[in-house]
Amino acid sequence: MDRVYNFSAGPSMLPMEVLEQAAKEMTNYNGSGMSVMEMSHRSPVYDAIIKETEADFRKLMNIPDNYKVLFLQGGASTQFAAVPLNLMKTGKADYVVSGQFSGKAYKEAKKYGDAKCIATSEDKTFSYIPEITPDMVREDADYVHVCYNNTIFGTKYPEVPNVGDKVLVADMSSCITSEPVDVTKFGVIYAGAQKNMAPAGLTVVIIREDLLGTAREDIPTMLDYKTMADNDSMYNTPPCYAIYVAGLVYKWALKNGGLVAMKERNEKKAALLYDFLDQSSLFKPTAEKKYRSLMNVCFVTGDAELDKKFCKEAAEAGFVNLKGHRSVGGMRASIYNAMPTEGVAALVEFMKKFEENNK
Amino acid sequence: MDRVYNFSAGPSMLPMEVLEQAAKEMTNYNGSGMSVMEMSHRSPVYDAIIKETEADFRKLMNIPDNYKVLFLQGGASTQFAAVPLNLMKTGKADYVVSGQFSGKAYKEAKKYGDAKCIATSEDKTFSYIPEITPDMVREDADYVHVCYNNTIFGTKYPEVPNVGDKVLVADMSSCITSEPVDVTKFGVIYAGAQKNMAPAGLTVVIIREDLLGTAREDIPTMLDYKTMADNDSMYNTPPCYAIYVAGLVYKWALKNGGLVAMKERNEKKAALLYDFLDQSSLFKPTAEKKYRSLMNVCFVTGDAELDKKFCKEAAEAGFVNLKGHRSVGGMRASIYNAMPTEGVAALVEFMKKFEENNK
Repeated sequence: MDRVYNFSAGPSMLPMEVLEQAAKEMTNYNGSGMSVMEMSHRSPVYDAIIKETEADFRKLMNIPDNYKVLFLQGGASTQFAAVPLNLMKTGKADYVVSGQFSGKAYKEAKKYGDAKCIATSEDKTFSYIPEITPDMVREDADYVHVCYNNTIFGTKYPEVPNVGDKVLVADMSSCITSEPVDVTKFGVIYAGAQKNMAPAGLTVVIIREDLLGTAREDIPTMLDYKTMADNDSMYNTPPCYAIYVAGLVYKWALKNGGLVAMKERNEKKAALLYDFLDQSSLFKPTAEKKYRSLMNVCFVTGDAELDKKFCKEAAEAGFVNLKGHRSVGGMRASIYNAMPTEGVAALVEFMKKFEENNK
Repeated sequence: MDRVYNFSAGPSMLPMEVLEQAAKEMTNYNGSGMSVMEMSHRSPVYDAIIKETEADFRKLMNIPDNYKVLFLQGGASTQFAAVPLNLMKTGKADYVVSGQFSGKAYKEAKKYGDAKCIATSEDKTFSYIPEITPDMVREDADYVHVCYNNTIFGTKYPEVPNVGDKVLVADMSSCITSEPVDVTKFGVIYAGAQKNMAPAGLTVVIIREDLLGTAREDIPTMLDYKTMADNDSMYNTPPCYAIYVAGLVYKWALKNGGLVAMKERNEKKAALLYDFLDQSSLFKPTAEKKYRSLMNVCFVTGDAELDKKFCKEAAEAGFVNLKGHRSVGGMRASIYNAMPTEGVAALVEFMKKFEENNK
């Protein structure tokens, strides 16, 4: 088998031309005589890479000048602690629990202060996004935390939630760069890079500058946003190679029309699958229509044995990693930016045939 | 210029055959139809990679069964906080400050309890390692922390320090896998991987099992050794690709005779440089003879302008990243496992010529 269609929820597909360029430059980057993996992070050649990566990311996401971009380690799971450790000044923060990861973020925040769950969709297995209105937010909460796209349950916020004048913090791990987003509506956006941007091991944080410098005194230095901002993400050695690959991915996205084009393509890809699911007699989508994710399409047959059979036969046909998250079962097709339309179309054809054969 | 001799202190040279294999497998690992960068960390194909990497690392380092190996993120700098957050039970810990990084570790530990500096070599610009005896350690200290090889000052412990029955914690970022080490003499060994093992973004922790489970309640979950041990380093997505490259490097080291052979070769390489420096009329080594590092060879001419000229001309001749750390100046040749003997020999020849031309 040469290349498969990889529907993994993350780490996930990267654009083929990015992989090919990385392979080509592996032993000698741009005449430097070394791999990007071997470069001193303080060398001029690497400095140019990280600066260009940040510039391209800013262009792609249309990030205003009063926001810092940080390239960190530790995944979104580390941000679950970093957010309250940095931003809880009054000791209060409000959380929306719309899936497993937002639940983990909420639980972690409770270690550091009075974190309150102001809304949840747990009552219907997180198949929808609860509505948020400004009056639900506590007057003295330092911020409101949401998970913008729920990887496991295949839901996303249909629009930026209205939290009034409160600081909105969003985990965008599984939807960042999938469509344009108005950064100015957020205080902090963070994302593990391994779904839509780079290999695992890089975490990107976008933070409004006035939110820097309020961390607790006993915060681990490496989690302090101000330390990282003051040192341009180089307080210590950053995850250099993952940042380089992210840079290649940003260039690929820009070259292919930026986030407006990504959104258009992602909507087309998602529609192929959802339209089929909506009329299928075998497969059922699990997320409520209004809240459907463009990135993670979850569905079931209603029969665990049949789900298993489907995943097995799909893998044999070159459609891999379609098994749903171990906590929910069923199927999930993650169709991030790098998944070509042909991959989704081919999957739908395969599903049609499977439905035909399993009537 | 094809390949240079890269004397960077880290990230640093990787074995050429490792880079070539990584490049070859970039778009299709072992018939899987995908890059290692694209693999779900919970897939059988990636599971085999991480398990084999751990097994090879255990073999290479001769790690006993009662020690866990953790593949983490955040660098040694994150461990500066993780160590006290996990291991300070009485609230007391003793630190030896033998350079910049051990100083940072000590400073970070003071955030979390009564950290005491029991010995330092600051009086002579960290050009030696202070002697440690068991009576210097506080009776109720939970552990003693050392930095085993000081990257910036080019010194290393000539033998494992004697801390009596206390738990010894060592930062081995810049010497791990450079020579055999008796793991049983340590409670915790940790190391950023970007010097001798892998690209930046991976941190390896070796911890004796009885030290797990004593973390403070408010520790960030991602820093809790027990959480990581219980989840086989997969509480969240690990830095998959860096782990894969580390695995290739471990296989390379095993194939080339393991750590006994690495030590022999490293001693030979270091001797080439130190022997030349000891008789040179222009260059002077800065570390005391007894404490010289095998990995980082620091030297000066005594004239900052001449140092600069040397670094410039060396770079033009293909010997790059010889500038000393910005905090100390002078020169530093980092000669990790992947630096071939020919590279060091060629550097010595170049230094001889430079000396001749600058009498």
